[in-house]
Amino acid sequence: MKRLLYLLAFVMSFSSVGQIERIEPPFWWSDMNLPELQIMFYGENIADFNVTGAEPVIINNVRRTENSNYLFVTINSADLKAGNYTFSFNKDGKKSFQQQYEIKKREDGSAERQGFDASDAMYLIMPDRFANGNPNNDSHPDMQEKANRGEQGGRHGGDLQGVIDHLDYLQDLGITALWSTPLLADDDENYSYHTYAQSDVYKIDPRYGTNEDYRRLADEMHKRDMKLIMDYVTNHWGAEHWMIKDLPTYDWINQFPGYENSNYRMTTQYDPHRSGRDFKYCVDGWFTRTMPDLNQGNPLVQNYLVQNAIWWIEYAGLDGFRVDTYSYNDKEGIAKWTKAIMDEYPNFNIVGEVWMHDQAQISYWQKDSEIGAIQSYNSHLPSVMDFTLHDAIGVMFNENESSWDRGMIKAYENFVNDFLYPDINNLLVFAENHDTNRLNEIYDGDLAKYKMAMSLILTTRGIPQLYYGSEIGMRGDKGKGDGDIRRDFPGGWKNDKNNAFTAEGRNETQEEFHSFTKKLLNFRKNNEVLHFGKLLQFLPVDNVYVYFRYNENDRVMVVINNSLETQQLDLSRYTEGLKTHVSGTDIISEKTIELKDKLSVEGQTSMIIKLK
Amino acid sequence: MKRLLYLLAFVMSFSSVGQIERIEPPFWWSDMNLPELQIMFYGENIADFNVTGAEPVIINNVRRTENSNYLFVTINSADLKAGNYTFSFNKDGKKSFQQQYEIKKREDGSAERQGFDASDAMYLIMPDRFANGNPNNDSHPDMQEKANRGEQGGRHGGDLQGVIDHLDYLQDLGITALWSTPLLADDDENYSYHTYAQSDVYKIDPRYGTNEDYRRLADEMHKRDMKLIMDYVTNHWGAEHWMIKDLPTYDWINQFPGYENSNYRMTTQYDPHRSGRDFKYCVDGWFTRTMPDLNQGNPLVQNYLVQNAIWWIEYAGLDGFRVDTYSYNDKEGIAKWTKAIMDEYPNFNIVGEVWMHDQAQISYWQKDSEIGAIQSYNSHLPSVMDFTLHDAIGVMFNENESSWDRGMIKAYENFVNDFLYPDINNLLVFAENHDTNRLNEIYDGDLAKYKMAMSLILTTRGIPQLYYGSEIGMRGDKGKGDGDIRRDFPGGWKNDKNNAFTAEGRNETQEEFHSFTKKLLNFRKNNEVLHFGKLLQFLPVDNVYVYFRYNENDRVMVVINNSLETQQLDLSRYTEGLKTHVSGTDIISEKTIELKDKLSVEGQTSMIIKLK
Repeated sequence: MKRLLYLLAFVMSFSSVGQIERIEPPFWWSDMNLPELQIMFYGENIADFNVTGAEPVIINNVRRTENSNYLFVTINSADLKAGNYTFSFNKDGKKSFQQQYEIKKREDGSAERQGFDASDAMYLIMPDRFANGNPNNDSHPDMQEKANRGEQGGRHGGDLQGVIDHLDYLQDLGITALWSTPLLADDDENYSYHTYAQSDVYKIDPRYGTNEDYRRLADEMHKRDMKLIMDYVTNHWGAEHWMIKDLPTYDWINQFPGYENSNYRMTTQYDPHRSGRDFKYCVDGWFTRTMPDLNQGNPLVQNYLVQNAIWWIEYAGLDGFRVDTYSYNDKEGIAKWTKAIMDEYPNFNIVGEVWMHDQAQISYWQKDSEIGAIQSYNSHLPSVMDFTLHDAIGVMFNENESSWDRGMIKAYENFVNDFLYPDINNLLVFAENHDTNRLNEIYDGDLAKYKMAMSLILTTRGIPQLYYGSEIGMRGDKGKGDGDIRRDFPGGWKNDKNNAFTAEGRNETQEEFHSFTKKLLNFRKNNEVLHFGKLLQFLPVDNVYVYFRYNENDRVMVVINNSLETQQLDLSRYTEGLKTHVSGTDIISEKTIELKDKLSVEGQTSMIIKLK
Repeated sequence: MKRLLYLLAFVMSFSSVGQIERIEPPFWWSDMNLPELQIMFYGENIADFNVTGAEPVIINNVRRTENSNYLFVTINSADLKAGNYTFSFNKDGKKSFQQQYEIKKREDGSAERQGFDASDAMYLIMPDRFANGNPNNDSHPDMQEKANRGEQGGRHGGDLQGVIDHLDYLQDLGITALWSTPLLADDDENYSYHTYAQSDVYKIDPRYGTNEDYRRLADEMHKRDMKLIMDYVTNHWGAEHWMIKDLPTYDWINQFPGYENSNYRMTTQYDPHRSGRDFKYCVDGWFTRTMPDLNQGNPLVQNYLVQNAIWWIEYAGLDGFRVDTYSYNDKEGIAKWTKAIMDEYPNFNIVGEVWMHDQAQISYWQKDSEIGAIQSYNSHLPSVMDFTLHDAIGVMFNENESSWDRGMIKAYENFVNDFLYPDINNLLVFAENHDTNRLNEIYDGDLAKYKMAMSLILTTRGIPQLYYGSEIGMRGDKGKGDGDIRRDFPGGWKNDKNNAFTAEGRNETQEEFHSFTKKLLNFRKNNEVLHFGKLLQFLPVDNVYVYFRYNENDRVMVVINNSLETQQLDLSRYTEGLKTHVSGTDIISEKTIELKDKLSVEGQTSMIIKLK
C-alpha cells in the first residue's frame, strides 16, 4: 500500500494528465532576441497551482486571469540554452506535478534571414483551390466541415501536398515567392476554405496537412531558391477558436459586450474630426459575427500574437508575412507587434493589407512614413500594398482614347505620388487578389490587355504579385460570389480533364497566356535592373506610356501603347532615358529594335526593350 | 542766346521728356519692411546714362540688361522718409537730366492689416459680367477690344462702379469679402474680359475704371467691414504687355525659344520619376500663345513682381490675394514671392489656385506643409483651395441611395484627410468658380440640392467662397463655352428687365435661392463657432451626414439628409456632439427643435441647429 501511494505520487508529479491540456508556445528556441517568453499553461483550474521553475529557469512574472484555466508564466528566456526545463506545479504546499518545456537550438543565421523583396515575383494561392495532393485529407474527423467540391463556398480538397507537387511548375514559370492564404486550423461549419477564422493558431488545418508538411513546403521552396510567405491574421480569430470558447480574460477580445460588427471605415484611424464611437466600431467591431476581434491592446494578447508569429517563422523557416486587415487593428498594438517581429528578424519582410484608395492613406502605414509621422505614428511595417495602382489597372486598359485623365495617364499619375512613400521598392504591385475581380474577367479574357497589365506590373518599381491561374487566363466574377474568383486550378485534381500545369495539358489560349507570363517573369528574375533600378517616366502621349528602369549597368525601356492604333514614337522625346543607346532587344519577340528616330508600336501592345 | 541756352539746360535737367517713358513702381512708401527698392527706368537708350542719387539716396546696384531701354536701379529704401528724391542721369560726363521719385508716407497699421480668414464669406465676381456702373467706359480709345454685349466672349461693360453700386446688396446678403477676377489692363484683341493676359500691371483697365476707382472700391468696402481680394497673376503676362513687346532680358520670360505651350501637368512639380523635359514644359511652357510665361527664377522679374504686388496692397489697401495658376509657377520663385509679401504683411492672406484632385498634392502647396517638407519645399502660401471637396460637391447630391462610397460619404471622407493640411481653417471651400460648371447647372436648378450644398459650404471648416449669381439660381454650362458660366448678373445693366439685385426685382425662384442664402450667410457671419470652431463628424448612415461645429461657448449641429426619404435619426449616436443639450433652434425655419431620442429629417433637406 505504501508502495502504491508512492507510485501514485510519482505519476502525479511527472505527468500533467488531466491538468495541463495545452502549452503555448509548445516549445521555444535559444539565442532569441526577445528577452522574455510568456508561456501559457492551459488546464482545468490550473491557476489554482503555484508554479516554480527549476534552475536555471527564472520566472519574471506569473499572471492569473479571471479564468482559472489559464496561467501565463513569463520567464527570462534570453540566457536559456537548448534543453529541457522543468516547471513544478504545487497546490496547498504539496508538489503536485511537473512539466517539461523544451528550448530547441536555434538554426544558424535564423535571425538574419532575408525576407522577400523587389527581386522576387510573388504568387498568391488559395490552398483549397490550387491542387489536391492528398485526397485522403479532404475531410477530417476532428473538423466540422467536410469536403464538397460541388459547392462554390465549400472545401474542395486542395492542400499542402498539392502545392509541393507544383513547385517545379511555379519555378519554371519564374515565380520566386509564394503567398498562400491562411493554412492554420479553421473549424467553422462552413466557408472554412477561406481560413481567416482560425480555431488553433499553432496547428496547420489537418485538411491541408500537418505542421511538418508546412515545414516541408518551406524546405522544398528553399531548395529552389524560393520564399514562403505566411498569411498572418492578428485582427481576429474564429468563433470556433478553443480560447474564444473559454476566454482567458474578458478583454482578450473586443466586446460591446459580445458582438458588434465593424463599420469597416478605416478612415477613422486618422480622421482628426472623428467621433470616438465610429472609431471604436471600426477598430473594435468584429469583421463578421464568426470572427471575434482580438484586443491587441491587452499585453497578454500582444505577447501571445508576437510569439505565435515568431514561432512560425522559426519553426517553418518563413521568409515573410502578409498580414490580413492590417489597418483594422488597434493601431498602437499592431505597430508593437510588427516592431517586435522586425526586431527579431531585421531583414525579414512583412506586407500589410491596407486596402485604401488614397496614397497618403496607404503610405501612412509604411514604416517611417512622413504621413504617419504627422500623427506621430510609425507602424514599423516594411511593406504596403499599392491598391491605387490596382484600382487604375482595373480600368485603364478599357480606356483607349486620347484623354486628359483616362488610360495610361492613370498609371503615370499613380507613380507621381511615389514621393509620399518612404520605400517604393517595398510596395506590393498587383492587378488582383483573392478578394477582387479577376483581371481576365474585367478584360473579358483579352490577351492583349493581360499582356499590357503584366508588362506594367512586372517592370515597374516594387514587388510584383500575381494571382494563381491568371497566367493561364483564368477568369472569375466577384459579382457571382467570392467562390467564382477562387475557382480550382485546372489540373490540380486527379481527374481534371484540362491540366494547365503542363505544356501538353494547356489549351491554346492557356498556352498563350502562360508563355508570355513565363517569358516576362524569367526576364525579370534575371535582370536586377527591374528589381531595384530607378524609374524614369514620361508623360503619356496619345495613350502611350514610356518609362525606363535603369541602374549603373543596365537600362530597360518599356512602352505600353494603350491606344487602338499603331503609334510612331518620336524618340527624341526620350533621350533622358535612352542616353546614347541606339538599339535594344525586345525581350518578348527577342528581336533587335532600332532606336534612332522613330519607334513604331502597334496598338494595344507593349514592348520591353533591354537597351544594348 | 545765353539765357536761352541756360533755360534749355534747365528744362533738360528737370524733365525727362523723351528720355524716361515709364518708372515702375511709380512711387513707393516709407517705413516698409522690404529693405531695398528696385526702380525700373524705361526710355529709349536710357541705359546709356549713368545714374546717381542725390543725398540721402543710396544706390546699391545699377543693373543694365541687353536691352538698353531699361535701367534697374536698386536703392536702399529702408531709411528713406516720405518725400521727393532726385536721380541724376548723366551721359558723357555731362549732367543730362534729373528725375524725381516720390516716397509716400505709409499709412499707420498698414503692415498689420488683417487678411481674409475663416470669419469671412467670400464672393467671386467677374467684373465685366457683374454690373455696368459707368456706360461711358465700356470701350476705350486706348484699348483694342470694344464692348459687344451680344458676344459670349466679348466685353459686356461691367466695371468697378458697378461693383461699388452693389456693395450694399452684397453686405445685405451676408458677404464680407470680395474676390474679383483681374482688373488690370488687358489689351488683347479679344477675350480681354477674362483679363488674365495683362498688358500693364500698374494700371486698372480703363474699361473697368481708374486706379482711383479701385482704391475707392476698397475704401467703400472697408466702410462696410468688408475685405477686398485682388486676383494676382505671377505666372504670365499678356503678349500685349508693353514689356513683353520690348523685353528687358531674353529670360524675362521662359523661351524655347519663343512659345511652346505648357503641358499643364502640375504633377511634374513633385514626381520623383519625372523627365526633365516634361517638367520644363509644365513650368516654363506658356499657358496659351497669348500668355508668355514669366521667369520667376530671374531676380529682376522676382523683384518686379514682389514690388508690384506690394504696391497694390499699399496703394489700394487690399486685404488679400488670390493667386492665379499658383502651381504652374517656378516652385522656388513663387515661394520667395509669397514669403516676401507675407514678411511685409504678416497677417495678410493669400490663397493660391492649386487645382488638383488629390489632397496630399493640394496640401503640398500650403505653408509649412509636412507633405511639401518631404521634398524640402515650403511655399509659404497661407491658403489653398479645397478642390477635392469641390469635386465631391459636384456629384454627391445626385447620389441619393445608400451606398458604401457614394453620396454624403464623399464629404465625410474629404474631411478625413484634413490631417494632411497644416491649417484647415485656411482652406477655401467652394462649389464652383469662374472656371467650372455652375452648381445650379450640375443640379438642374434644383433648389433642394443647392440648399444642401450651401449648408455644407457655409458650415464646415474653412473659408467659404460663393460665385456671383448662384444666390439667385444662375446657371451656366461650361460645355457651352466659358462665357456661359460667366453670364451677366440680371439687373447689372440699365435696361435689364429682370433686376435680381432687389427683392422687388427678383422672381419667385430667384427669391427662394436668395432668401435661403442670405439667411445662412448672416447666421454664419454672426456665429464665430462656424468660423473657427472645431469640427466633429459622424459616419453617414443612410446617406445622412451629421456633424457639429463647437467651441467653448457654442455648438451647432448640421444634418444633411441626402436620401430621398425622411430619416429618423437615433440621437443616441450623437451624444459626443450633443453633450447635454436636448433642444436647439433650426436657423432656417427658426423653430425650436427637440433633441431627445429621435430627430426626423425630411429627404433632401438640411437642418442647421444651434444648440440651446
